[in-house]
Amino acid sequence: MKGTMKVAVMNGIGKMGYTTRPIPTPKEDEVLVKLEYVGICGSDMHYYETGAIGNYVVKPPFVLGHEPGGTVVEVGSAVKHLKVGDRVALEPGKTCGHCKFCREGKYNLCPDVVFFATPPVDGVFQEYVAHEANLCFKLPDNVSTMEGALIEPLAVGFHAANQGGAHAGQTAVVMGAGCIGLVSMMALKAEGVSRVYVVDIMQKRLDKALELGADGVINSREKDAVQTILDLTDGLGCDLVIETAGTEITTRQAIEMAQKGANIVLVGYSKSGEMTLPMSLALDKELTFKTVFRYRHIYPMAIDAVASGKINLKGIVTNIFDFDDIQNAMDKSISDKANIVKAVVKIAEETKV
Amino acid sequence: MKGTMKVAVMNGIGKMGYTTRPIPTPKEDEVLVKLEYVGICGSDMHYYETGAIGNYVVKPPFVLGHEPGGTVVEVGSAVKHLKVGDRVALEPGKTCGHCKFCREGKYNLCPDVVFFATPPVDGVFQEYVAHEANLCFKLPDNVSTMEGALIEPLAVGFHAANQGGAHAGQTAVVMGAGCIGLVSMMALKAEGVSRVYVVDIMQKRLDKALELGADGVINSREKDAVQTILDLTDGLGCDLVIETAGTEITTRQAIEMAQKGANIVLVGYSKSGEMTLPMSLALDKELTFKTVFRYRHIYPMAIDAVASGKINLKGIVTNIFDFDDIQNAMDKSISDKANIVKAVVKIAEETKV
Amino acid sequence: MKGTMKVAVMNGIGKMGYTTRPIPTPKEDEVLVKLEYVGICGSDMHYYETGAIGNYVVKPPFVLGHEPGGTVVEVGSAVKHLKVGDRVALEPGKTCGHCKFCREGKYNLCPDVVFFATPPVDGVFQEYVAHEANLCFKLPDNVSTMEGALIEPLAVGFHAANQGGAHAGQTAVVMGAGCIGLVSMMALKAEGVSRVYVVDIMQKRLDKALELGADGVINSREKDAVQTILDLTDGLGCDLVIETAGTEITTRQAIEMAQKGANIVLVGYSKSGEMTLPMSLALDKELTFKTVFRYRHIYPMAIDAVASGKINLKGIVTNIFDFDDIQNAMDKSISDKANIVKAVVKIAEETKV
Amino acid sequence: MKGTMKVAVMNGIGKMGYTTRPIPTPKEDEVLVKLEYVGICGSDMHYYETGAIGNYVVKPPFVLGHEPGGTVVEVGSAVKHLKVGDRVALEPGKTCGHCKFCREGKYNLCPDVVFFATPPVDGVFQEYVAHEANLCFKLPDNVSTMEGALIEPLAVGFHAANQGGAHAGQTAVVMGAGCIGLVSMMALKAEGVSRVYVVDIMQKRLDKALELGADGVINSREKDAVQTILDLTDGLGCDLVIETAGTEITTRQAIEMAQKGANIVLVGYSKSGEMTLPMSLALDKELTFKTVFRYRHIYPMAIDAVASGKINLKGIVTNIFDFDDIQNAMDKSISDKANIVKAVVKIAEETKV
Repeated sequence: MKGTMKVAVMNGIGKMGYTTRPIPTPKEDEVLVKLEYVGICGSDMHYYETGAIGNYVVKPPFVLGHEPGGTVVEVGSAVKHLKVGDRVALEPGKTCGHCKFCREGKYNLCPDVVFFATPPVDGVFQEYVAHEANLCFKLPDNVSTMEGALIEPLAVGFHAANQGGAHAGQTAVVMGAGCIGLVSMMALKAEGVSRVYVVDIMQKRLDKALELGADGVINSREKDAVQTILDLTDGLGCDLVIETAGTEITTRQAIEMAQKGANIVLVGYSKSGEMTLPMSLALDKELTFKTVFRYRHIYPMAIDAVASGKINLKGIVTNIFDFDDIQNAMDKSISDKANIVKAVVKIAEETKV
Repeated sequence: MKGTMKVAVMNGIGKMGYTTRPIPTPKEDEVLVKLEYVGICGSDMHYYETGAIGNYVVKPPFVLGHEPGGTVVEVGSAVKHLKVGDRVALEPGKTCGHCKFCREGKYNLCPDVVFFATPPVDGVFQEYVAHEANLCFKLPDNVSTMEGALIEPLAVGFHAANQGGAHAGQTAVVMGAGCIGLVSMMALKAEGVSRVYVVDIMQKRLDKALELGADGVINSREKDAVQTILDLTDGLGCDLVIETAGTEITTRQAIEMAQKGANIVLVGYSKSGEMTLPMSLALDKELTFKTVFRYRHIYPMAIDAVASGKINLKGIVTNIFDFDDIQNAMDKSISDKANIVKAVVKIAEETKV
Repeated sequence: MKGTMKVAVMNGIGKMGYTTRPIPTPKEDEVLVKLEYVGICGSDMHYYETGAIGNYVVKPPFVLGHEPGGTVVEVGSAVKHLKVGDRVALEPGKTCGHCKFCREGKYNLCPDVVFFATPPVDGVFQEYVAHEANLCFKLPDNVSTMEGALIEPLAVGFHAANQGGAHAGQTAVVMGAGCIGLVSMMALKAEGVSRVYVVDIMQKRLDKALELGADGVINSREKDAVQTILDLTDGLGCDLVIETAGTEITTRQAIEMAQKGANIVLVGYSKSGEMTLPMSLALDKELTFKTVFRYRHIYPMAIDAVASGKINLKGIVTNIFDFDDIQNAMDKSISDKANIVKAVVKIAEETKV
Repeated sequence: MKGTMKVAVMNGIGKMGYTTRPIPTPKEDEVLVKLEYVGICGSDMHYYETGAIGNYVVKPPFVLGHEPGGTVVEVGSAVKHLKVGDRVALEPGKTCGHCKFCREGKYNLCPDVVFFATPPVDGVFQEYVAHEANLCFKLPDNVSTMEGALIEPLAVGFHAANQGGAHAGQTAVVMGAGCIGLVSMMALKAEGVSRVYVVDIMQKRLDKALELGADGVINSREKDAVQTILDLTDGLGCDLVIETAGTEITTRQAIEMAQKGANIVLVGYSKSGEMTLPMSLALDKELTFKTVFRYRHIYPMAIDAVASGKINLKGIVTNIFDFDDIQNAMDKSISDKANIVKAVVKIAEETKV
């Protein structure tokens, strides 16, 4: 008998609590991970505030959290590449491996995916989780489990960069300097993009972007973002835009500042789900719009980029909350968006390397 | 002294006339082509009806027409691949060859392009034209110069298919069964796409689509196009949509009928230039939107496809007007859109092979 | 208790026999298929003649055959897309679905693949087989199970065409007019390639190539294949070569006849495993060499191409042997390579549609 | 009247001298560049030692040198993006802009290219050159004209990385640590490749590789390169190999150390032009071989990478020779290959920024 663990649950809109559940036993292809850090994502906040995202409706008690890092404490019999004591980042989506999408390598589109903290599947604001070993990626000694937790949002940034065909020599613009905007900027830099500019209306976030490696920032409250980018590119426009703000206005700006033949990557969801866009202008420029749904094939490359020092992933964390303080963690993350770029929940002390 | 030629000119909105101009002399890298057929394109009609497309404003007298086929009658001194008597299709855009876009192979985006019938550059509703020899593509004996003229719109269809990554095994949908919808459908079939369905609200056009090789048609006045495509694909949705109707409603349907990870190619311009679209749904499905501005690298492949019998290009022509009847040709093309799928102007008898 | 079935076994080099085994019971994600036709592949012959291919060594009794078509007679509890009576083509390789290669969509490179008739995994020269339902592809009514058996070699042809980036407008050459050469040629045509020429030294095979749709053939005993291709392409060379003969001489010719920037797809294995090639010439032309190991994501598209009439797959079969005649089938296939392009073994009468 | 300039000429095998020629006058689309540094390339040495490369035969007096950097001193009337005093790197190949290859964006394959120091076209070991302005790329203030000269070999490295599809997350190996091996390594790092190992047999060169940013080096005199790479990749093999040594042994090693599905980029020319390779192993692994002929679309990205500090381009220069010392420069470069990684000729003092 393995004992029990503490689990934070959402008991209703705006109500967090704790419960006790049995520590799970890993199957033969799984490992049991003692969780150390779990990030708070915008989707966690959205479920917490409204009880649903689209057709995904929370039925309490529900466990939020899908950005986990921790240490392996038990290993299934068929697992070869991990051992007890390995520190890991957990990719949160288990996919079937056999559908059309999985077979073609686009496993993020698997209709049978089981994804942490997506109703009715529980997340990981809890002390332990048993997870498919192939989805647990070992961290090098110089990468902490807090950084391991943050590999999840960073993966979105890398997928956005990949979808956009980012490469050396380009001038890219990131619309929005929230967590996803920042990780997108860092992913673009790590992939060799020559110049990355970040646009936002909150100066604090722009300062953070500069601190983390942006080549320039534009406060669009003060300056015309489109004109500024045109000026910076001899009137040509940029090669690539990653739109993370999810607003019509920033998406229109993306279309206007992109050069002919450019790629625009849409990452941010708009509130209404709809946008009115100047599509004829997009045709005149022969633009391509790529979109991002989660990510695929990213964890190893993202861990590498952090380990090599190319990406200062720790730098995006503005707040660390204790596991015992989770109600406050959720409330603060929502009420103080101006100051909290990224919050993580510390579930346990990090295992010493 | 070479003599003069008859030129049809637009003298104002809705007013065609004729004038006489000197027959041009080809430069060393040009050929002189006696024109035999020139197609009437939607853009010709738009200039004729309204005097402008966006910033391109007609200043009369202006020569319309940019879909030409004819026979070489004189060859510049540096031209090696053509000789007098060769029947050719003329690609209408001369590009600089040295800008960033030209050097990268996306010459259709060259900012210095000189394109027939795009103000202030005259078109080719006239008896002769001198044109860059590299843009004159020799027609095999079994392809007529009327078909040669129609290579231009077919090139748009092939570029749309290429932009969409069309390939064997796919199920594709074409929204709109006008000229561009039909050539897109034929291009998809020629590239090996397994099933191509065409959606329109005019049954005559759908009948034409079936006649020219569509695997099925959907009259969206009578049937729900989205549901029909879902039914035809076991609920999965189609792999590729080419949107040629240029309406918000058909573009929304494209997003709804596309399967996860699918490509949507936007070809049709909307009247207002704007569209309100369900972008969050597009993100959930991780769709890609490609757009089409003219075409590049298509003429040889399009001529091949016609010569081999894969594409019944003649079949799209519903009306042939005499050069002397050009006012009527323009007026009829506009007033009788229900019956005229594609009209061409016969400038001269075709040279015998 | 399900009863037993007849199984043909290789009892040693050059020795076929029969044995009796229990009819297998399908697992929940499997179907039981009554086999009707199984093709004889070059690898079957190689195992039969020599007892091994590279490190794969036959330990008798061993069941050959990996090109199966048949009818579903029992369905596992979790299978949704198939029912009893469905006629199917069976993709012969079961992959893990979770390794790096599977996750990236290159499942043909899965190191844990279980592939019919690849020691120590038995093949399907037998009356029944239980197989993963996701690998059993339903045949339309107008595609026979004999054609279903031949989807396997056709899949190699399509994968070769895909690896080569085949598309409309190209001139391609296939070196070798054996079974794989012919299916490659047919796949190229189905993908819209404009001109496909086939090179061999056996006129019978070339006649077959013409019959099945090649645009031209070259008997390289009689004509210089390289010069002929250069003449056919105005001295430019071809866009794509698919090399299926597996000889150094044909691979050198491929390099010589390819135009600058062209793709050469290597499919045929050479006897010694080594080739001496003019690599500097390849660099001067900036050629790309793609290679083919089996195939991936091909069955549905290949079945479509046969169903639509684009590919005359039956046409490659020169010999049908009875199951009772399997020793002769193997011996003849080896001794009479000049006349036997493709042999299949008829295991049972085809189920009526 | 413009006056005359000093030109270094190859007067025969192993014989350098000087002559005087008129300073050229730039055409309207050209600029006149006062040359400051010109690199010595392996091809210069080869012409100097043997009088020919393949079909390109030197007819003395012939001007070597095709890696130039300098300052604009006169501007043609149609040139807009450059002015007197701009410091530039010169891309040495003028292409036609209108052939099939140019139009498709593969201008490096243009059959009518005019390339410096490729007989019968003279190179630039001289004081001035008039060159197409579009091929003269302005250097930022923090990039010297010596670095400008070295953009040419760096462009080969970037093209190799691009041909190999280099990207973040990969483990790459560079065979050979000469100039092209080193610039390939640096290009891979600049494009975000996670780990780049360099293999050579000369320890000095390997030390240089480490100094310039390689993640590890392997002296294959001392260690089995294939086994070392397998050990470093958990037995999987590397994702990408760039072969710059041009030997059969290193190319075979590349095939052996590459993981399934990997890309091998061939850059080095072998002495005999031929190589004997284990092609069956390449098929089993479904490897792709890309090749490199010069480069395309690289100068701006390469200059960016140097300006941003990602690439220590100066670091590859081991020797700077005076223009007056050119005989010695050539002789030394050939006789002391062990110590000279890269030599440049200083034609004039660099213009002050």
